[in-house]
Amino acid sequence: MISVQEAKEIIRQNTQDFGTEEIPFMESVGRILKEDILADRDFPPFNRVAMDGIAINYIHFKNGERTFKIEGIQPAGSAQLTLKNSANCIEVMTGAVLPNNCDTVIRYEDVLLKNGIAKITIDTINANQNVHPKGKDNVENDVLIHKNTLISAAEIGVIATVGKSTVKVAKQPKVMIISTGDELVDVHENPLEYQIRKSNVYTLVSLLKELHIPSEIVHITDSKSILKEKISNYLQEYDVLLCSGAVSKGKFDFLPEVFAELGVDKLFHKVAQRPGKPFWFGRIASLGISEQDVYPKLKKNDAIVFAFPGNPIATFVNCFVYFYDWYYKSIGIKEDKQFAILSENITFKPNLTYFLQVKLENVNGQILATPIKANGSADLASLVNADGFIEIPKTENTEFKKGDLFPLIRYKK
Amino acid sequence: MISVQEAKEIIRQNTQDFGTEEIPFMESVGRILKEDILADRDFPPFNRVAMDGIAINYIHFKNGERTFKIEGIQPAGSAQLTLKNSANCIEVMTGAVLPNNCDTVIRYEDVLLKNGIAKITIDTINANQNVHPKGKDNVENDVLIHKNTLISAAEIGVIATVGKSTVKVAKQPKVMIISTGDELVDVHENPLEYQIRKSNVYTLVSLLKELHIPSEIVHITDSKSILKEKISNYLQEYDVLLCSGAVSKGKFDFLPEVFAELGVDKLFHKVAQRPGKPFWFGRIASLGISEQDVYPKLKKNDAIVFAFPGNPIATFVNCFVYFYDWYYKSIGIKEDKQFAILSENITFKPNLTYFLQVKLENVNGQILATPIKANGSADLASLVNADGFIEIPKTENTEFKKGDLFPLIRYKK
Repeated sequence: MISVQEAKEIIRQNTQDFGTEEIPFMESVGRILKEDILADRDFPPFNRVAMDGIAINYIHFKNGERTFKIEGIQPAGSAQLTLKNSANCIEVMTGAVLPNNCDTVIRYEDVLLKNGIAKITIDTINANQNVHPKGKDNVENDVLIHKNTLISAAEIGVIATVGKSTVKVAKQPKVMIISTGDELVDVHENPLEYQIRKSNVYTLVSLLKELHIPSEIVHITDSKSILKEKISNYLQEYDVLLCSGAVSKGKFDFLPEVFAELGVDKLFHKVAQRPGKPFWFGRIASLGISEQDVYPKLKKNDAIVFAFPGNPIATFVNCFVYFYDWYYKSIGIKEDKQFAILSENITFKPNLTYFLQVKLENVNGQILATPIKANGSADLASLVNADGFIEIPKTENTEFKKGDLFPLIRYKK
Repeated sequence: MISVQEAKEIIRQNTQDFGTEEIPFMESVGRILKEDILADRDFPPFNRVAMDGIAINYIHFKNGERTFKIEGIQPAGSAQLTLKNSANCIEVMTGAVLPNNCDTVIRYEDVLLKNGIAKITIDTINANQNVHPKGKDNVENDVLIHKNTLISAAEIGVIATVGKSTVKVAKQPKVMIISTGDELVDVHENPLEYQIRKSNVYTLVSLLKELHIPSEIVHITDSKSILKEKISNYLQEYDVLLCSGAVSKGKFDFLPEVFAELGVDKLFHKVAQRPGKPFWFGRIASLGISEQDVYPKLKKNDAIVFAFPGNPIATFVNCFVYFYDWYYKSIGIKEDKQFAILSENITFKPNLTYFLQVKLENVNGQILATPIKANGSADLASLVNADGFIEIPKTENTEFKKGDLFPLIRYKK
């Protein structure tokens, strides 16, 4: 049985490039930018007035002049005026071009306006004050946003400013989510005594939606021939199959056999972890790609299969640990590792890497993790009481102390 | 000029209830639940087999028996079998009902199957092991998710499990986003020398989308009569107007006058903060609601107006500090306060509450904030280089030390 670290590494060696697409910029939040966004001009593009007030030529103030005849008004969005007599001033508005022959702006708060004359009421002003000079922030062709940035509202403003009404982003993988298990009925159905309702597929759809990956769902009955027929088609049509259930030791856990018979290369089955030990991972090997060719990119249509165990907590945390990680690397995002500090002593013998459900709290800038009470990997409702998981490594230790540091997988803010 | 704290308090006294609506559960991620989600039955709903293996009656193992004749198979999703001879066993699959007359499950790994006989190969088993007892996690009518929870993927699984194909959530406010400023042209246009492209409205739309609030946008020219006519209509049709620009001292900053003439009650204008000092906040007072009636809920159609200064950083951070806060309280969410630790000494004299752009890093479970270089509130592109803002309080201090703790507004993960 391989370790969590080994499993992660195998998965990272099987990332895939789904290409790029051009989409309207307002639909790009949450997507991964696949071009550098350049300044199309200097920013600011002109010597920009930064306060409402009057613009003067500083030399006259320096020479002791305090009253300035108002020649005109320079609103934002108007062609640049020229101060004809450099002893005069022009009223200027925030965002306007600084008029020609002016170099300094005095805000209205420090000026008295009367009968077409502006009188400066303070004694200390600095040359060039309240002017945001052309090119101060960026010059034309500066890279404002680098390729492979996750687009958020902050990037949207910049993309708009440089006039990119469409942007090039990473295409998303085409994902089919497959549930198995004859005990499952749908949400709108009334389960019989020995049945339960499906939940994992809906959780997975929601987790993928957080990555802005659309997905489809299907339920397949626990029949080997039906599984084989349907999955054979999905392997052709989808980039990724995310399965839940049918990978353990049960008499009806057909998936590993079905994948083998369909030529899906098993890259591993079983990971030394809890929850999710029977996790199966593979890729379609029908194109005969050698191990050496696989990294860093598989050819398109080389479907990847994540077959998670059916217990809800296992599916949930394994999606974060493995699928998210695979997706981020496939798509070109570097994820910073997060850590949390254990808030109380705990005692248990994991003997496996253990993903422990925790409630998180920011106390004085520290992320404290407090384990929550849960009844194992089938206790779905416990997910809503936690904010994340801490990853407790496989170790001989049975004692973990308050203050110990662990990698954090956070799923709630 | 009021303080940030006073401004927040006034805003919190003007929250609004937008009612509730019933929506398909798969569209509810990011929305606020407005009903308790109850267990519709016990969880597990039956004594559930937790491992693939054989089910026995423990007394026989205790009495020294190690070989058990296999009477049948109990798959998941089948009606409960009964073990006829309690000295025999039944093969059982994870997720199945524990057969009648059995109490203990031994996993396949610890059993040898041969000629219809199961031989247990270990000496220590515990009575009731590998059985997840009926009602262990929750009993019928337990509250699994409380009202006012923000729905995430974790909640979706639970909602599916209890068969809620639709859920009751808070209705979202109807928001119009208004930009002003004659220097602005649209994203697809080529600005003249003295023009720039619109960005704030797109940033605001994106920030609201993160709250799952749809919004509309409009640009209004810097004409008092046109502003008045259009805003008069929007005040009737929308719950919230978010404006950007035209609230400072400029000759064309008509919004405060326009609001006054339209009967919008000014609750404050100007906050002792940077960026965003000229922030204007009000509500339509035409229904004559007295101050006492306002809290905790305004009547529907009492439009709220957030008029942010036009500089992009001001609009951005003020949306988080004020609009987000107002929305969370309106909708019933308690937001935990976040804090970050300053990673280096800084010296400056804010004299105002200062929202400082910072890059964030999780170092050993501590959230460290490092100020980034930016050129003031018009330096839009600087937003993409930061992850958040720290709120530096108004103080006589000019020195802030490495290790000092500040409230954090985080906008990137």
